[in-house]
Amino acid sequence: MLEKFRVVLSHTTHPGNIGATARAMKVMGLSDLALVNPTHFPSAEATERASKAADILSKASVCTDIESAITDCRLVVGASVRTRSLPSRLVTPRELVEVVKNNLENLPVALLFGTENSGLTNEELHLCHYQVYIPTNPDYSSLNLASAVQLISYELRLAFSELQHLPDQRVVEKEQQVSRAQLEGLLRHFEKTMISTGYINPAHKKQIDNRMNRLLSKAQVTESEYRLLRGMLSSVDKLIEP
Amino acid sequence: MLEKFRVVLSHTTHPGNIGATARAMKVMGLSDLALVNPTHFPSAEATERASKAADILSKASVCTDIESAITDCRLVVGASVRTRSLPSRLVTPRELVEVVKNNLENLPVALLFGTENSGLTNEELHLCHYQVYIPTNPDYSSLNLASAVQLISYELRLAFSELQHLPDQRVVEKEQQVSRAQLEGLLRHFEKTMISTGYINPAHKKQIDNRMNRLLSKAQVTESEYRLLRGMLSSVDKLIEP
Repeated sequence: MLEKFRVVLSHTTHPGNIGATARAMKVMGLSDLALVNPTHFPSAEATERASKAADILSKASVCTDIESAITDCRLVVGASVRTRSLPSRLVTPRELVEVVKNNLENLPVALLFGTENSGLTNEELHLCHYQVYIPTNPDYSSLNLASAVQLISYELRLAFSELQHLPDQRVVEKEQQVSRAQLEGLLRHFEKTMISTGYINPAHKKQIDNRMNRLLSKAQVTESEYRLLRGMLSSVDKLIEP
Repeated sequence: MLEKFRVVLSHTTHPGNIGATARAMKVMGLSDLALVNPTHFPSAEATERASKAADILSKASVCTDIESAITDCRLVVGASVRTRSLPSRLVTPRELVEVVKNNLENLPVALLFGTENSGLTNEELHLCHYQVYIPTNPDYSSLNLASAVQLISYELRLAFSELQHLPDQRVVEKEQQVSRAQLEGLLRHFEKTMISTGYINPAHKKQIDNRMNRLLSKAQVTESEYRLLRGMLSSVDKLIEP
């Protein structure tokens, strides 16, 4: 599905931005790049900034007009951090995901990015079904080109990649938490030891017991942590009754 | 609310990445930057890449150790695109938003970013209550530092830019978590007392210290629980040196 999104950079001035865009795309699993009248391309600077995403640059199509870059696209979306009087519907990147989900029959999708200084031209905006607006700080909205591509690609990856979920490690490497019976044993040990040290008054032990119960529950004590705490308490017990 | 997030860059090698991070932050409305042992700073390259976010660089605090950078933070989150066996709970940037919403009494929040090549060290990971993992292409997960800051800042802006104040009644009722400095004091107290009881061999104290750090981080110790544990330790101290 992520292959069905084409990033179209129009009249990009700095080749470093083209390379950084390729890297931003590849990290999120996008691969289809089209360049409309880039100032310098191919370029060593672009290749360097692309790092290991240079394959996206070598596969990129280079066109002299934007129509040729999007001729097979059924949904065209313009990207901007500026808002202007617009011929197209305005959505956030997250709303764009919903738009695409409602247009799965209308692929591929073109994502147009204008030149660095002035963004999309009016002519380019007129090609767009939607305009995606990235929410930024009104006092400083100067998001660079590759960062804009990065944020939109990230939203698309979250929505359309099947590999979006967290790694299995989260489950597999986690150590088992103690049973309730063990936790209860640990609480009784704390209580006994702290009565011995004089910290707990046996007549009012319930209140501290409740607080320790809550603290140890929050901690999600594992087997090895259980042994650690038991060991600490036993070392105190030995001071009292050697 | 966005002022309550501190971006902490540890041992950043390339000054350009520091500048690009400042820009990524400012575009999303974040402003608090701390640098731990940057290789080159201040730097003309950082200032240039920061563009109009140079004010964030001039206000940035520079520290020699990570503890100093986060001493007043009550929630500490490590950022990584790598997954390893982890001492902290793993969340996506979007899940992080939910974590913060449930911890509005635990501000400021530190967002730790490790060095470019190898990410956070184990020692740094041990300071974290959570680790945030940015989903990327498993074939090419090399997200650059400023891009990672950009994506997390974007999620925070979407969630928190409207929140001018702490709105929830729950905030008032919920007890605050201790600061990193308090947690460090508690760990030192455990260490000192357990050396006295003979449980900790001073030559090998680091390992138990790491495990206690992890356990107490998971527990998200509150102010009153902090006093409870300190009181218990003091009652043991009195047995040893009455």
